[in-house]
Parts: sequence; structure tokens; C-alpha cells
Amino acid sequence: MLYSSATFSWSNLPSRSAITEFDEQKEMISTSGYFHVKWTDEYLMWNKDQYNGTTELYLPQDDIWKPDLVLANSYKSFTGMGYPNLNMALNSSGYVQWVPNQVLESTCSVNIRYFPFDEQTCVLKINAWSYSSDDVQLSIANEGIDLTGYSTNSQWDLLSTHARVLDIPDESAVEFELHLKRRASFYVLNIIAPVLLLSLLGPFAFVLPADSGERSGYAVTMFLSLAVFLTIIASELPKNSEQVSYISVYLISMTACNTVILAISLAQVRLVKRDAAREPVGPYLRCLYRLYARLRCAFSDEPTRRLNVVHVSDAKTKERTRRETNNTYLPWPEVMNALDFLMFWLFIIITVICTVVLYLVAFFKV
Amino acid sequence: MLYSSATFSWSNLPSRSAITEFDEQKEMISTSGYFHVKWTDEYLMWNKDQYNGTTELYLPQDDIWKPDLVLANSYKSFTGMGYPNLNMALNSSGYVQWVPNQVLESTCSVNIRYFPFDEQTCVLKINAWSYSSDDVQLSIANEGIDLTGYSTNSQWDLLSTHARVLDIPDESAVEFELHLKRRASFYVLNIIAPVLLLSLLGPFAFVLPADSGERSGYAVTMFLSLAVFLTIIASELPKNSEQVSYISVYLISMTACNTVILAISLAQVRLVKRDAAREPVGPYLRCLYRLYARLRCAFSDEPTRRLNVVHVSDAKTKERTRRETNNTYLPWPEVMNALDFLMFWLFIIITVICTVVLYLVAFFKV
Amino acid sequence: MLYSSATFSWSNLPSRSAITEFDEQKEMISTSGYFHVKWTDEYLMWNKDQYNGTTELYLPQDDIWKPDLVLANSYKSFTGMGYPNLNMALNSSGYVQWVPNQVLESTCSVNIRYFPFDEQTCVLKINAWSYSSDDVQLSIANEGIDLTGYSTNSQWDLLSTHARVLDIPDESAVEFELHLKRRASFYVLNIIAPVLLLSLLGPFAFVLPADSGERSGYAVTMFLSLAVFLTIIASELPKNSEQVSYISVYLISMTACNTVILAISLAQVRLVKRDAAREPVGPYLRCLYRLYARLRCAFSDEPTRRLNVVHVSDAKTKERTRRETNNTYLPWPEVMNALDFLMFWLFIIITVICTVVLYLVAFFKV
Amino acid sequence: MLYSSATFSWSNLPSRSAITEFDEQKEMISTSGYFHVKWTDEYLMWNKDQYNGTTELYLPQDDIWKPDLVLANSYKSFTGMGYPNLNMALNSSGYVQWVPNQVLESTCSVNIRYFPFDEQTCVLKINAWSYSSDDVQLSIANEGIDLTGYSTNSQWDLLSTHARVLDIPDESAVEFELHLKRRASFYVLNIIAPVLLLSLLGPFAFVLPADSGERSGYAVTMFLSLAVFLTIIASELPKNSEQVSYISVYLISMTACNTVILAISLAQVRLVKRDAAREPVGPYLRCLYRLYARLRCAFSDEPTRRLNVVHVSDAKTKERTRRETNNTYLPWPEVMNALDFLMFWLFIIITVICTVVLYLVAFFKV
Amino acid sequence: MLYSSATFSWSNLPSRSAITEFDEQKEMISTSGYFHVKWTDEYLMWNKDQYNGTTELYLPQDDIWKPDLVLANSYKSFTGMGYPNLNMALNSSGYVQWVPNQVLESTCSVNIRYFPFDEQTCVLKINAWSYSSDDVQLSIANEGIDLTGYSTNSQWDLLSTHARVLDIPDESAVEFELHLKRRASFYVLNIIAPVLLLSLLGPFAFVLPADSGERSGYAVTMFLSLAVFLTIIASELPKNSEQVSYISVYLISMTACNTVILAISLAQVRLVKRDAAREPVGPYLRCLYRLYARLRCAFSDEPTRRLNVVHVSDAKTKERTRRETNNTYLPWPEVMNALDFLMFWLFIIITVICTVVLYLVAFFKV
Repeated sequence: MLYSSATFSWSNLPSRSAITEFDEQKEMISTSGYFHVKWTDEYLMWNKDQYNGTTELYLPQDDIWKPDLVLANSYKSFTGMGYPNLNMALNSSGYVQWVPNQVLESTCSVNIRYFPFDEQTCVLKINAWSYSSDDVQLSIANEGIDLTGYSTNSQWDLLSTHARVLDIPDESAVEFELHLKRRASFYVLNIIAPVLLLSLLGPFAFVLPADSGERSGYAVTMFLSLAVFLTIIASELPKNSEQVSYISVYLISMTACNTVILAISLAQVRLVKRDAAREPVGPYLRCLYRLYARLRCAFSDEPTRRLNVVHVSDAKTKERTRRETNNTYLPWPEVMNALDFLMFWLFIIITVICTVVLYLVAFFKV
Repeated sequence: MLYSSATFSWSNLPSRSAITEFDEQKEMISTSGYFHVKWTDEYLMWNKDQYNGTTELYLPQDDIWKPDLVLANSYKSFTGMGYPNLNMALNSSGYVQWVPNQVLESTCSVNIRYFPFDEQTCVLKINAWSYSSDDVQLSIANEGIDLTGYSTNSQWDLLSTHARVLDIPDESAVEFELHLKRRASFYVLNIIAPVLLLSLLGPFAFVLPADSGERSGYAVTMFLSLAVFLTIIASELPKNSEQVSYISVYLISMTACNTVILAISLAQVRLVKRDAAREPVGPYLRCLYRLYARLRCAFSDEPTRRLNVVHVSDAKTKERTRRETNNTYLPWPEVMNALDFLMFWLFIIITVICTVVLYLVAFFKV
Repeated sequence: MLYSSATFSWSNLPSRSAITEFDEQKEMISTSGYFHVKWTDEYLMWNKDQYNGTTELYLPQDDIWKPDLVLANSYKSFTGMGYPNLNMALNSSGYVQWVPNQVLESTCSVNIRYFPFDEQTCVLKINAWSYSSDDVQLSIANEGIDLTGYSTNSQWDLLSTHARVLDIPDESAVEFELHLKRRASFYVLNIIAPVLLLSLLGPFAFVLPADSGERSGYAVTMFLSLAVFLTIIASELPKNSEQVSYISVYLISMTACNTVILAISLAQVRLVKRDAAREPVGPYLRCLYRLYARLRCAFSDEPTRRLNVVHVSDAKTKERTRRETNNTYLPWPEVMNALDFLMFWLFIIITVICTVVLYLVAFFKV
Repeated sequence: MLYSSATFSWSNLPSRSAITEFDEQKEMISTSGYFHVKWTDEYLMWNKDQYNGTTELYLPQDDIWKPDLVLANSYKSFTGMGYPNLNMALNSSGYVQWVPNQVLESTCSVNIRYFPFDEQTCVLKINAWSYSSDDVQLSIANEGIDLTGYSTNSQWDLLSTHARVLDIPDESAVEFELHLKRRASFYVLNIIAPVLLLSLLGPFAFVLPADSGERSGYAVTMFLSLAVFLTIIASELPKNSEQVSYISVYLISMTACNTVILAISLAQVRLVKRDAAREPVGPYLRCLYRLYARLRCAFSDEPTRRLNVVHVSDAKTKERTRRETNNTYLPWPEVMNALDFLMFWLFIIITVICTVVLYLVAFFKV
Repeated sequence: MLYSSATFSWSNLPSRSAITEFDEQKEMISTSGYFHVKWTDEYLMWNKDQYNGTTELYLPQDDIWKPDLVLANSYKSFTGMGYPNLNMALNSSGYVQWVPNQVLESTCSVNIRYFPFDEQTCVLKINAWSYSSDDVQLSIANEGIDLTGYSTNSQWDLLSTHARVLDIPDESAVEFELHLKRRASFYVLNIIAPVLLLSLLGPFAFVLPADSGERSGYAVTMFLSLAVFLTIIASELPKNSEQVSYISVYLISMTACNTVILAISLAQVRLVKRDAAREPVGPYLRCLYRLYARLRCAFSDEPTRRLNVVHVSDAKTKERTRRETNNTYLPWPEVMNALDFLMFWLFIIITVICTVVLYLVAFFKV
């Protein structure tokens, strides 16, 4: 009977609220602010004339009734709002104001798919824990959180806030929603930029001549660098396996690309030393060589040396020439040279397309 | 006399329960939720007519008797449930409802054998600490934990829950069992994929010609990369030595494989420069060379150059030829070439078999 | 009625104050010190003659009224000042002295632009939380914080402090400002010095002859070292994306520089082996070669061998010679040599200019 | 007067005790369990007939006298046992039972000499802090800790426990000793196995020919790998300098070994290119060469080519031959070859002996 | 009036005191021990005959007056000594004994100049916070801390302790000084030993022939290894910039040394391939070559081949010879060889001198 029928409305006006920490690894957000809770308690009225005209009174929060507000999705522990010595302001008409300041650590599911261009939505659910909505009726003063005195967070941009009363039977709760956007420039500069440079340098393994004695060293270093960067970025991300971040996919596909580059490079180092007299070039490689020859013709204005005769001839001559080329002596270094050319451009194009596609997807959140 | 004979039943309905953290290193699981405890206390009845018809009353939890429930396998500290200002709901018939919300940090033995495809079973044991089962009788309302409002954890999938009353003399306890399955995609993408690529690249050391001046550099880099990845993965795992994770076994066997590859590679770099005239090829290597010759014949349609004469000859000729081959001049580079071929395929096959066997075992938990 | 009309003035005299910790990652500053709060409470007067001439009295802080001072921008939690058993000194005229000692953890926005030559301004806002400025009037005794007994912090130099009463309606607050300057010598020695040495060594890739078989290894190692240092420095900085630190910009531009060096180096390794007879040197490279020839002339006193004839000839002869040079045989190794010379000085100059500009900007905070 | 003469006996029965954490870095052990403390308080007797036959009563622990038991070697803070709401069981004859459950964080000196095959002894000293042994007499119920319900720790094996009453004047204390053995398989697999493989690969630098252009790269990589592993293991160990762990000694001696290998390798790369005509081989190297020649003879059945003539000759001839050998032309590559052979086996033997000796010592704790 | 005139003396006898942690990064020392505080409170006397001859009494610490002792240079928070349930021993003559046990976390300025041979002095300042020295007079029982039962710390050696009463007006304080010496063997073995080996290996770059194709790889690896070790050691040290540790200075100078070695090495790789006919050796290098020739003569007993004629000639001949040498053909490889010799010994000597000087300075703290 005592408190049970007391209904009250409240409003929140966090001033100097701030997101002190957002730990994606733990999926915990820590916010600092205060709630401005107001209600009328008919048992706390007094006649000011009887008490020397006193109209206002401050009392420690544990001395009178207050709703047992609690952060329902707390991360570390559940405790009530405020601290024992916090004063409440009463006036003679029974109007009570309670302004508990609090650092709230709440859980927040993180979606890392679009990292580091991700947006996150965190919810702070406040319950009047032991009361049903019949006993204590919570209401909100504003549509969102009052951001007067909000000090910006350096890692996250607060896009918008939203407050709403939850309509759950047997429960009396309000929910505050924070819509956050990661400020990406740190990650763009310190992680994405080096990864991009590294990815573009991968196909340059084909620029090194196969017989230079440096190619396998270069290719294996590039492969390992990508593997190391993959590990560094993985350690920055939450070990979240509901979604897979596009940047992880990008890195693993770049690593796979470099694995292929490495394998081809190693094979070329062996093949370049073959003697074409004893081991002639196989049909697939011959085919690639012809593709290379045609491409060089297409891209260079100057008539290609050694091949221009073939080029200007008519279809019939071509046919004959091809048959001849198949049978003629084609030295391995020439073929490897052609392969270098083709592979270099192939992997440059693959890298560029992969990069563009993945960053577009991450940026525009398709 | 006062409380001793009070028996009570309880039920738990955690809403918005969540696994906030599962630290395999510390073997600690942190769960957040609430218990819905109900009992009838005959000393807390009142006649509502005497008190203006009041049938319900809210009181702070320390003001009346409650069972001293405690998490028996707590990780950090033992404290009672709830917090001092938490209200309990009483009604005039002595029926009490207590809904303590709590973040429970409990110990949980971790079995890392099948990492990262592992399943874990964690137990939360709740005791009415100072009472025996004669004094306080705990019972459960549901077969498991009520998962209404459960927010999924991004690293662990909650497969099932189970609740049971423990039948221990002199103790009054219930146990909640959580059956969890790790979401493996993060580890598959960021650890297993690079390790697989790395393992497959190991035998490619034999693709590099022994006299290219790049082989030892390549082989030693591969060996070290695996050792580094071993260390990275070891730092991710609990330093648990009851079981050994299959992925550790896999990595150490891959490292051992690469040690052998490295040793053979280094030997080949020396042997390839030997002069067969002064130091002829030994019988074991000759034997391997013949194996190589036969395999090449078997796999290639085209008659093997230089060896086809031997191949088509009859058994008798073969015998003679072998004796001849033993005595004839066999240059070291030829032998090293054969060894490269054999070792490449041998280690590729070993790697593939190891990989398939170990991942199958880890996946199907044989 | 009881305390509401009490106004008071206060002063702070932190002795042995110290900055115990400044965590840039969390943007939290931890300061240790005390406040010397004084006011007159008319309800706490007594007639000393009635009480054996007692003029002074010590009482625990929770027994009498005190303003509920609180650190408004607290990092971890909001609690009142002092601890329950702390004594307050009263005298018979109602004059109260309260000296709560406290370790204050407050949020502090960090501007990392000029790292490690940065200056930070941290604010400690103290509120009489539940009172408006009509009820409790805070005032300050000094212009800043009393630094008697201040023990210096080894990482941060306290340049100046500032105290001011905030003029906000409905709020009663004072603000203490700490102006801090990072002691940079640790970072200069352990991060900037190695980075500088590394940056200068980058262009030395062009000192290695293109056909030495060591160039690509050297260039790729330098590139990766810079990428690794970038990652190390990034992990030291707050993941702050409001500003970008100049040292990050410097490192990423050095990494980009080394990417270009690496790409050119790789290309040179291929070009140096070209046969000028079959593939003559293109016009751009010829142009660069002439620039190199002229520069060598300009810088060396001794008449340049092989080119001095061209040098002393008149304009007409020059013109003819140039045409000749264009058509004449110019071997690739000569051109690569010229390119080495030009690129070495170009990148040395770029590195030095970048370095000087960026450190000047960071140091003088332009 | 009130409690001073009360003497009591106690016993401990930890159930579900567990070692939740053993942090060697901090030298802290965290154990979880409970104490079963029993005594008779003559002031707490009552006549059950006067109180409706009530023989048993539960009271919160702060309401009646209890010994102020405290963990004397606590790591983080000193607090009493139990928590305020914990119930004590009284019966009418004044017999009190107190079962405080506790997570005890105590200091524990770690001896890392035999890491990872080490055994540790940790002591938990429980004091009745403010009482002397005249006031409160502690006794123990069992010889050790009751391990019913003990859940095994995954890193440490609990070999035995021991309890004893300390006989110190003016102090009332009992001591519980835990004898722990590290489960080594994690470290064997993830640290010792790679280190062993790495150590064995060090001398393989001598397998690479000195003129292959790969030796210095291989030797320097091996040296650095050991230095890196040394650093990794050092970071796993407590920065304990009372004892030095044998594994550290092993690693540093392996690193020193590889330094010597590296220095010899580098010298060989220079010497192998010397012209024996201009700079003849010195007497020490000649001596080593003869040793090599003799060893080859000893180990191979087949008569050594090119040297067998010397071998079968009589002593006198030998003498002459030696003088001749001294004067005769001995090419540097031959000498380097001999040095390779000798050094390879020398360092392989040193490595194996070091390894066997050190692991035996660590394992059997000689 | 009540407590204000009470003066008291106290003594401290920490038993089982221990340094549980010394965090140089945070500059925090954590000590565990107890204070034995004694005073006479005239208000707590009683006539033992009136109370059944009771002469001694134990009371919880919050029930009677006690000085509000506080650790003035606390790191984390200020709280009083002891805990609420700690008992105090009173006797009938008003003599009170209070033995609060405490883990004290205090700030401690760290001077890292001589790391790891450093000694640190930490101060624990204990205040009777709210009292002036007129009210409460603190005194000390011993000259230092009683070390009975002190358990040694494995990282720090406690050289001496010192206690003194501070003579500050208006303040009542005692200070305990701990003089600590770091046990260096861990750092000597795990950090200094590898660094020493690494430093000595730096100049061995000159042992590798400039045309071996391995020198730049070796020199760059050595340079990077030192940079990496610099970073590892930097992460072990407090980011303290008041002093600079000698080991940091040593490492950065070694890194600078290796930068010079690397630059010279790279230049040599280019110069060794120059044709002395087209580009003759410059005067400085000729000068160095003559120095080398003279040094070789001085150090070898055997007359230097090819140069001994010059050596034995008279001054006049020398003059002529020098002129001749200047003009004569001097091949680049010869010069590079001489440079290798000179640079190797120069840098070996620099390294040894640097090493000896810096460790002597660090060890003897000059």
C-alpha cells in the first residue's frame, strides 16, 4: 500500500554526457551522464506555514522512496542509480527531483561487417526493476537525449539518439538508442593505406626477371607481410563470428592471390633454366605466348620487332604461321618473359578490382 | 527457531540474459541475467483489513528473510545476490517474490582439444549457502533457462541449457548448465586459412632449383613463418595442458615437416655442386633416381626422352641396364632434379593428408 | 528548510598533488590531491562557555551537512568526495573546514596532432551536484592550483594551472584547468630517431647496383620496416580520428615514398638486363640520362670523361650532338646508372624536406 | 572482558575448492574455497524451553562475535572472511558454525629454475589477526585440505596439501601449504619443440657451401630466430632474478653458439674466394684440414680418394708427407670444405649435449 | 573538545611485509604489511574492579577514536587504514593498540637512468590527515621498518629502510623510505646478452666480401634487429622522459653505428664493380689504402708480399713511391678490401669502447 500506487513521470536531460569508452572486443559501451527524474509523492507534502515557510528541502536519496531504476543491459554489475549521499530536492507540494549521475557500462552488440566504416546502434534499457507498469509508469521528456554539454568522442561520432517507452506487460522500462559512426581516418591512414600499398606491390614480383635470383625472396616476403597484417588487423577486431568483416575477406583474398603469385614465381624460376631443345614449351604456354605477342602489338604503336611480319599477314598466312610457331623453337626465357607480362597485368587488374569492389561495398554498405 | 523451518520453492526466468564474456585464458564465463525466486513466509502475513486493504508491499531485500543464495563456483568473489536497495514484492498471504539481477562470473573448465570447432559446457551452481536441504528446499520452475529476451553472443552459440536440483545431503543447491559452441568463422578466416596456405607453400621449396641461390632463403622463411604462427596461436589458447589442441599438434607437425624440408634443401644446395666424376652418386640416391624415372614414365603419355629406350626393353635388358646405370656416370644436378620432384610430391601429399585428417578429427570430434 | 539557504565559499590547496596517470588511449587523466573547503554553517555554532571552553571539534564527514561536491567529468564512476571516516574541523563560530583527499579520474580530450611534441589541456569540473548557484555559491581562493608539494610527473610537464568559477544558471561549479606538455625525449630517442635513420636509408636502395642481386631485397626490407614502425607507433597512439597526428602522416608518406622506390628498383632490375640493340632506350629515359650528364658536369670540377667534348662545343654542335645522342647506341646499364644517381638524390631531397617540414610543423605547432 | 577469554577450535573443509588463477608474473595465486569454523561461545547459550523449543538459529555474521580471521599473505587487500549477510548457525548449547566462502588472492614466491617442469609450493597463512594464541587457539581438523569437490586446474596439478598450526608466540595462526606441479605439455609443444628444431637447424649453416651466396643469410636468420624466441620466452616468465631458469640459460647459450656459427660462416665466405697462390693457408687451418682428412678415413670404409696413399704409408713417410702437405699447394675451397665438415659435426654435438644436459637437469631437478 | 587535545605516540612493526608489486610503467609500488599503532586515550579508562576485574577489551576499530591515518602518496584511492571489523585492544588504563594490516599502493618516482642496474628510493608518507601536529603527535619506534617475517621480492632487493618523523607545521606525518635495488640477472641474460652479441655482429658485415651478393642483406638485417630490440626494450621501460636510460642511449648509438655500416656497405657494393681504368680511385680512398698497407705491415711478422719493397726503402724513395702510387693503377676491389679491413676494426673498436664505457657508467653510476 505504501508506495505501490505511486505513478510518476520522468525526463532525462544528460548534460556533459560522453561516451567514455567503446570496447568492441568486449562489446561494451561506457556512457557518462545523468537522468533528471521527477515525480510527485503524496506522502511527502507538508504545510509550509507549519515549518517557518520552508518550501524546499534536500534529502539523501536513501531516505525517501524512489523508483529502483536499473540499467537492464549492464555489462559488469547491477546496481541502483546514484550513490547514498546524493541529495534529492523536495518541495512542499510533494514534487521530488532526483538527478542521479552515472557512468553506465552496457552491453552493445557490434556488427563488424563494414569495419572501419561501420555504424553501431547501442541501446541503454532503464528499468524500474521491481515494479510493473501498473505500479510505476515511466515516461520520457524528450524524443532523444539532451546533448547540451555533450563532449564529442574522438573515435565515434554520435549520429542521433532516440528515446522511447517500452510497451511490455509487467515491466516498466524506457530505452535510449545511440546511433554511432566510427571515425575512420585513423584506420584509413594506419591500416588501410599500408595494406593497399602492400597489395599493389604483390604483382611486382613479375617485374623482377625470373633468373635474377631475387624473385622468390620478394614474393615470399610479400606473402608473409600480408599474413602478418592479416594477424594485426584480426587482433584489432572483436572475435566476432556472426558477421565477417569485409576487410578480413579482402586481406585473405589478397593473401590467396599472393599465394598464387608465389607459386607461379617459384615455378618460373625453375622453368626459365630449362633447355627448350630438350624440353620444348608445352601447348598451354605457347598459347599464352601468342596472347602476349598479340597484346604487345595492340598496345604499342611502333611495329613490333620480330613479330610484325606475322601481324600484317592475311588470315591464311596467320594459320600457317601459327602451325609453324607451334613447331618452331621457342626459348623458355622468352616464354617466361611473356608470362611475366601477362601475370603482372592480370594480378594488377585483379588487385585493383578486388580493392575497388570491397571498399565500395564497405563504404556504401550495399 | 526463527527461519529454520521455512521451506520454499523457486523458479528462475532470466530475461535479457547474455553471455557478456567468456575468457578461455582465465577459464571464466561471465553471464548476466536474473533469478525469479518465490516463497511463502508465514511470519510475513497480515490481515489486509487492518491495514486499509493493502495487499501488496515492496520492501528492500535486506529488511526481511531471504535464502542466502550464492554462486558456488564464483571466479572472483563470493557475494550474495542482488544489492541492498533491491525491492522484494510481498503480499498479504506471505507470498514473497525476489528478482535479483546479477552478472555472474563463474569458473568454467575449458577443453581446447577441438579448437576452434570446440563445444564447452559451463555450469552455474547456486547454493543456499548456510542452509541444508532440510531447512531450505530449492526447486526449479523450468527444465532449462528461460531465453526470452536472450541477446546472442557473437563468439559463442548457446546450443542448449539445462537446470537440475542437486541431490546432495546437507546442501541445498541447483545447477544450470550452458552448452556452448564456438562460432568458428573468425578463426577459420584469420588463423586457419593463412596456416593452410602457408603449409601448402612449404613443399614449393623443391620447385626452386637447388642452384638458384634462393632455395635456402625460401625454406628457412617458411620454417620461421610456421614457428611464428605457432606462437601466435599458442598465445590465443589457454595454457591448458590437460588436453592438447589438435591445431597445435597440426602446426608442430607442419613445423617438423618444414624442418625436414629445410634440411634436405640445404643438403641439396651442397650436393648439386658436387662433381660426379670425383664423388659419384651413392646407391640410395641412385635408387631414388630410378624411382623418379619410373614415375615420370607412368605419368606422362609422351615417351620420356632419354629414358624411353630403357622403358620399352624387356626384363633381362632392364637388369643389365640397371647394373649399367649403377656404374654409369650420373650427374649430380640430374639426381637433385629427381629428388626435387620426389620430395615435392611426397611433402605435398603428407601436408594434404595431415591437413585433411586433423581438420576432420577436429570437426567431427572423433 | 534545513540547509537550503546556506551559502559558502571554498578554496583549494592541493599539496602533494600529482598526475598519477595520463592514459591517452582511454583519454583519461588521473590526478591525486586534496581540496580545502571552508564555509560557515550557522546551525553548527555553540557557546564555548557552556561546553568547558571547547572551541574546536572534529567530526566524521557524514555527520554534518557538507556540499555534495562531485567531479562532473569523471571517467569511471561518480562518487562524493572523501571517505566516511574523514574528519571535518568545526569551531564554535560555525566555521567548518573539510579537506577531502581524492584520486580523481577524469575524462580529457586528447589532441594528438603534434605527437610527441603535443600539449594537452585537461579540465576538472567540480559541481555541488544537487544545488543550484542560488543555494550553494562556490568560489576559489587562488587563481590556479596550489603546487606546494607537487611531485613532478615523469611523462608530462605541468605548464600552468587555472581555476575559475563557472557562470552557469542553475548550476554551481568550478573548473580547474591543467595545461600539460609531453616530455618528448623518450619518444625522440626510441621512436623518432630510428624512424629518421630508417627514412634516410630508404633511398640508399639506388646505391646498390641494379644487377647486384641485392636491390629488391634491400628495398622490400626497407618498405616493410617502415610499415612495421607505422604499426608500432599507431598502437602507441589513441585511436583518435578527429585529428591525424603529423607523425602518422610523415610515416605514411615515407611508406609511400618507399613504395615508389621499390617499384622503380624492381623495374630497374629488369631493364638493366635488356639488350639496347634489340630494345633501344625510350625518349623519356634518354631525357633523364642527358639531365644526369649535365648534373655530373655541373658538380664535378674535372672535365667529365667521355662527355667533355660535347660540353665545350657551341650551340650548333650541341644541337647536332643531341640528335646524334638520340639515335646513337645508349646501353641500358649506363641509363640505369644515371637513373640510380638521379633517383638517389631526388628521394634523399624529398626525405629531408618532408622530415624537416613535418618536424618543424609538429614542433612549432604552425 | 567480553570475548577475550574465549578459546575455540576450528576445522576447514573446502569443497569445490579450485585454483582459479596462478599468475607467475605477479607471483600471485588465487584459490577459491571455504573454511568450516566451529567454536563454542558461552555467552550464546539459551534454554530452549524458554523459546518454544528452538534449538537452532541462523544469524548474519556481523551480529555475533567471531574470530577476525584474515589471510596474512594477501596479495591485493586485507579484509575479513565472508560477507555481511552470510549466516552463522548457532545452537542452544552455544555451539557456533561459520562457513565463510572466499576467493583468496595470496602471494606465492615462484621458483622458475626448472620451468616448465617446475613445482611450486604456495602457502596460505590464516591469522586471527588481533588475538594472541592465549586469547584464541586455532586448531586444524584434517592434515591437509579436504579435496571433496575439488575441480582440477588445467595448468597446475595439485600434488598434495598440508595444514599445520603455527607455533608463534603472540600470534594465532594456521598455515595451508599447496604443492603444485606445472602441467608442461603446452610448453613442451608450443615452446620447447620449436626451440629444439631451431637449435638443431643452426649448425646446418655449414651444409650450405660457403660460395653459394646463401650462407650468411641463413646463419643470420637462425641467430635472429633464437634471439626472438629468447624474447618470447622471457616475456612468458616472471622477471624473477633470484633464480635463473635453465631454459633461459639454454637459449642464451644456443644464441651464443649461433653467434660463433655466424662469425665463422662470414669468415668462410671471405676465405673461400682467396687465392691460395697469393695468400697460402695458415698452419692452424692446415692442421684442421689434416684432422678432417683423418676423420673421413676413419668413418668411410671405402679408401678415401686422393688421400689413401698418404693413409697407408708408414710413419716415416707420413712425417715427410706432412711436411710436404705444409708446403704444398692447398686450395682454400678444399680447406673451407673441411672446415664445414668439422664445424657441422662439432656444433651438432655441442647442441645435442647442451640440449640433453639441460633438459635432464630441468626434468630431474638435479 | 572531545579528541582534539589527545596526543599519542606510535610505532610500526611490519611483519610479513612484502613488496607485492613494483610497476615501473605506472610508477607505483605496492607494499603489504601492518602498522603497530599505540596510544593512551584518557576517555577510555575504566576501573577494573567495577567490571569483574576485566583489564582487556577488544573493540571494532570504528567504535572508538583513532587517528585518521592515511597514505598521503596513494596511487589509486585514499582510504583509512584497516577495515571496519578489525579489532583494537584496549586495557583499563586507556592504553590502545591498533594493528591495521594493509596493502599500500603508493606512487614512486622511478629513475631509469641506470636500468637495469638501477636503485630506486620509494617513500611511503603516512599522515594523520585531519589533525595538525599540535593535535596528534606521531612518533616512530624504530629507525626503519621491522623486517621480521619479510619475504623477499624476486625482482627487487630491499637494501635498507628508513623511518623519520616529518617536521612540517600544521601537518602530522611520518615517512618510511625503502631503498631498493633491481635484481639485474634476468635482464642481463635476456636483454643485455642478446644485445651485446648483436652489437658485436654488426661490424662483421665487413667480413663478407663486397661482391658476394650477401653484404647488404646482412647489414640491413643487423640494422633492423637492433631497431627491433630498441623497441622491445623501450616497451619494457617507463615512458619516462625526465631521465634517459643509458641502455637506450647505447642502443640508439649502436643503431646509428649500424646505419653508417650499412651506408658504407651499400656504397662498397657499387664501388667494387667500378673499372679503375675509367674511374680511378679518389685521393681519400688512396690515403685509406696506404693506411691499410702500413697497418698490415705493422701487425704481420712476415714481410708483406707485394709491398715490402716500398716499406724498406728510404725516405726519398718513399716520397717518389707515393707519387707513383697516386698515379699508378689501383684496382677498386683492392681498395674495397682495404676499406673492409679498416672499417671492420674501426667499428669493432667503437662497439667495444661504447659497450665498456656505457656498462661501466651504468654499473658504477658515475
